[in-house]
Amino acid sequence: MVLRVAVVGGGAAGMSAASRVKRLLGDKAEVIVFERGNWVSFALCGTPYYVGFRVKRLEELLHYPLSEFTEKRGIRVKLGSEVVEIDADSRRLFYQEKGGGNGYYDYDYLVLATGARPRIPVAWREFLGYKNFFTLHSLDDAERIRSYVSDSGVKHVVIVGDGYISFELADNIQQLGRKVTIVGKHRYPLYKAFDDDMSSYILQLLEANGLTMRLGQPAETFEADSDKVTRVVLSSGDSIEADAFIVATGIEPETVLARKAGLRIGETGAIWVNEYLQTSSSEIYAVGDSVETVDIVTGRRVWAPLAPPANKMGYVAGSNIAGARIRFPGVARTSVTAAFGVFFASTGLTEREAIAMGYKVAAAKVEAYTKARYIDGGGKRIVIKLLADSSTGKLLGAQAIGDESAFWRINIVATLLMKGATVWDLFFNDIGYMPLTNPVWDPLTVAARLLLRQLGLSPD
Amino acid sequence: MVLRVAVVGGGAAGMSAASRVKRLLGDKAEVIVFERGNWVSFALCGTPYYVGFRVKRLEELLHYPLSEFTEKRGIRVKLGSEVVEIDADSRRLFYQEKGGGNGYYDYDYLVLATGARPRIPVAWREFLGYKNFFTLHSLDDAERIRSYVSDSGVKHVVIVGDGYISFELADNIQQLGRKVTIVGKHRYPLYKAFDDDMSSYILQLLEANGLTMRLGQPAETFEADSDKVTRVVLSSGDSIEADAFIVATGIEPETVLARKAGLRIGETGAIWVNEYLQTSSSEIYAVGDSVETVDIVTGRRVWAPLAPPANKMGYVAGSNIAGARIRFPGVARTSVTAAFGVFFASTGLTEREAIAMGYKVAAAKVEAYTKARYIDGGGKRIVIKLLADSSTGKLLGAQAIGDESAFWRINIVATLLMKGATVWDLFFNDIGYMPLTNPVWDPLTVAARLLLRQLGLSPD
Repeated sequence: MVLRVAVVGGGAAGMSAASRVKRLLGDKAEVIVFERGNWVSFALCGTPYYVGFRVKRLEELLHYPLSEFTEKRGIRVKLGSEVVEIDADSRRLFYQEKGGGNGYYDYDYLVLATGARPRIPVAWREFLGYKNFFTLHSLDDAERIRSYVSDSGVKHVVIVGDGYISFELADNIQQLGRKVTIVGKHRYPLYKAFDDDMSSYILQLLEANGLTMRLGQPAETFEADSDKVTRVVLSSGDSIEADAFIVATGIEPETVLARKAGLRIGETGAIWVNEYLQTSSSEIYAVGDSVETVDIVTGRRVWAPLAPPANKMGYVAGSNIAGARIRFPGVARTSVTAAFGVFFASTGLTEREAIAMGYKVAAAKVEAYTKARYIDGGGKRIVIKLLADSSTGKLLGAQAIGDESAFWRINIVATLLMKGATVWDLFFNDIGYMPLTNPVWDPLTVAARLLLRQLGLSPD
Repeated sequence: MVLRVAVVGGGAAGMSAASRVKRLLGDKAEVIVFERGNWVSFALCGTPYYVGFRVKRLEELLHYPLSEFTEKRGIRVKLGSEVVEIDADSRRLFYQEKGGGNGYYDYDYLVLATGARPRIPVAWREFLGYKNFFTLHSLDDAERIRSYVSDSGVKHVVIVGDGYISFELADNIQQLGRKVTIVGKHRYPLYKAFDDDMSSYILQLLEANGLTMRLGQPAETFEADSDKVTRVVLSSGDSIEADAFIVATGIEPETVLARKAGLRIGETGAIWVNEYLQTSSSEIYAVGDSVETVDIVTGRRVWAPLAPPANKMGYVAGSNIAGARIRFPGVARTSVTAAFGVFFASTGLTEREAIAMGYKVAAAKVEAYTKARYIDGGGKRIVIKLLADSSTGKLLGAQAIGDESAFWRINIVATLLMKGATVWDLFFNDIGYMPLTNPVWDPLTVAARLLLRQLGLSPD
């Protein structure tokens, strides 16, 4: 008997699950992917680089061409097919096709990989009809933005939103010779992943690169003439005129289908799953940006829509459907962005979050050079902030700004967070050294030493 | 009463211990450093870059100028003073000064930081008198080598030895326009830290950069005319003519003083210390390249003379002398070198070592790109080899070759080794992702996935 597996959503997590089932079961499984859009396995994270022409063709943003899945891996893919209802009791899903047809499919297992959608105020939706007003949540969006902003008539682009994608877009659009203004509601950029003291460095760096920032004044609404949006109006009453507007005010989990199917929605508003990634209906798994998981640092449920865990969730769900019993352990919420050649990376809790959760927090901040002092003047500057629970010495999080090594140093802290490690573990961590890679007292080790002192765990 | 602390050896580990005692005890301690050479706190790792003129002045290789220690930190430093005997029972040391004087000092605590010395066959010592025959183990050696090989009469330099320093030197000497030949006894370079399958990549890379390698044929002896060494003779009978010869056949712990003082020498041949870094005489601590420590991966005693642990040992010993009780946990033996812009990094056991120790080893090797495929053609190539104990899934070690990110990825494995982690921990490790830093399935995660399959821990 052939196992019938349906996957709803052809993003990275969904295709990862589909591939895994086929790989493990081969002809013993029929795997069918329903994707309402035109692409599968696309790299949304790459779209800013498409806008800036660093990526030339849209097809390059596909992790794999469609034929890799259909021909090589034997997965059936239905593009332009939207699943509109799931009957969990009878294990049947209903779908509608763009062309107008519709149908149903009886599954043994289903994987929900519906992803996330842009979170845009209802009042702004009317502007989505204008040709110079954009969100960036699909390859088609990227195509529209690029073809519009690369037109020589566009001189000034406003990006609304102060998250990762805004700065990557801003960098790329400036490369096209356009002036860019970012409008954000928080006083400092990248609020979710960085404390204000760190974000203030980021702010300086971005401004030094010619980016205009209007922060602490959320966008209220827009003004438009007959065919174009002409200005964004801020809460302060100020308004900014521009030729194009991109709204990147965040995303939210796509849970409509899950709610309709009666699946449990977690405290975070994303789909609840157990550690095997099963929803409240045990034949339905859910993976990727639509589900919540566990924050390893706090043990709490968290919604952390990031690509690497999404892909690994696909691996886990697919394996489990094929008969394995693999647990997804959770995440440290490690994230990174880059603009103008500077990398901004973060893992675990910010100080702000940790305090809000009731932790007694000790913090240390180090400004240092990335290399031995006698090599190229010490390399680049790096700033690292390190946080620990002052009652236990357990690491809580870290943030870093600098060259690519800032990202890697944060990954080392993330590794320790995943293992529940302490500041001592970071201090004694045996990372390598040679003059071309780092100083013998790596900035990370120095940060740990400083934090030990803050904690009173070391004699001074 | 003032605590009297003597430090024998002014290298990084010794100065780290000295600084720590002074920092914690201030005027309550007298700290005196006996250094037989002319420098303290020098960065031997930087000497190849001095030879290649990437570092211009020798003084740049000092972590700190002498005055930082003497004036700012209040440490007494006796340069050109060699400690020749320690009477552990009466806590008295005897020293001789270069100028001819001698004296003794009564200590409450002593820190042995005698470091390591070049391991050079007895039969070759006669050649040390020749002006074109060198070892590289001090700043003065670096000065001699640079001034000799940068003379336009020198066309060809032979480096005997196939360890880290040889390749760093070779790179730098080639920068000066000299031909360089490396003579090594193993069939592949970097034998200690890399398995043959990985070293064969290194070999290709080095040869592609114009380096001549004569491997698998140890140097037997040298030939000389009246004032110069003229050729090295290999075990095969072949000989190679050159204008200068640098012997870098490794180092050994400097234990003469410790042995004379009756201190316990460990099974590795280095000075035995407990986890607080006390020798068998509890008022005598020992730190740095002359002591053995614990290999975290195997739990065995190991001699691992590397700069970061040496510095941390100084911190631990200094703190403990000042009244703390800090344990030095051991090392993963993480190491890295670079030549011609390629980085070679390693941590934990090699497959060869693991098999010799009786482990049942599973190995996975991945060749991949360092970035998202659509960014700059995927960035650079990287090769990662990952090892685990096939009975427990515990990580045993890793090796990587590539751009600087190869080094950082090895540090992530090192971090996991320090925590006794498994391949699953590496697979689920929450390292960050964005297109400019890595692929969404990082090569490290892919290596873990492959290794899970080897181990039979994952269903396929």
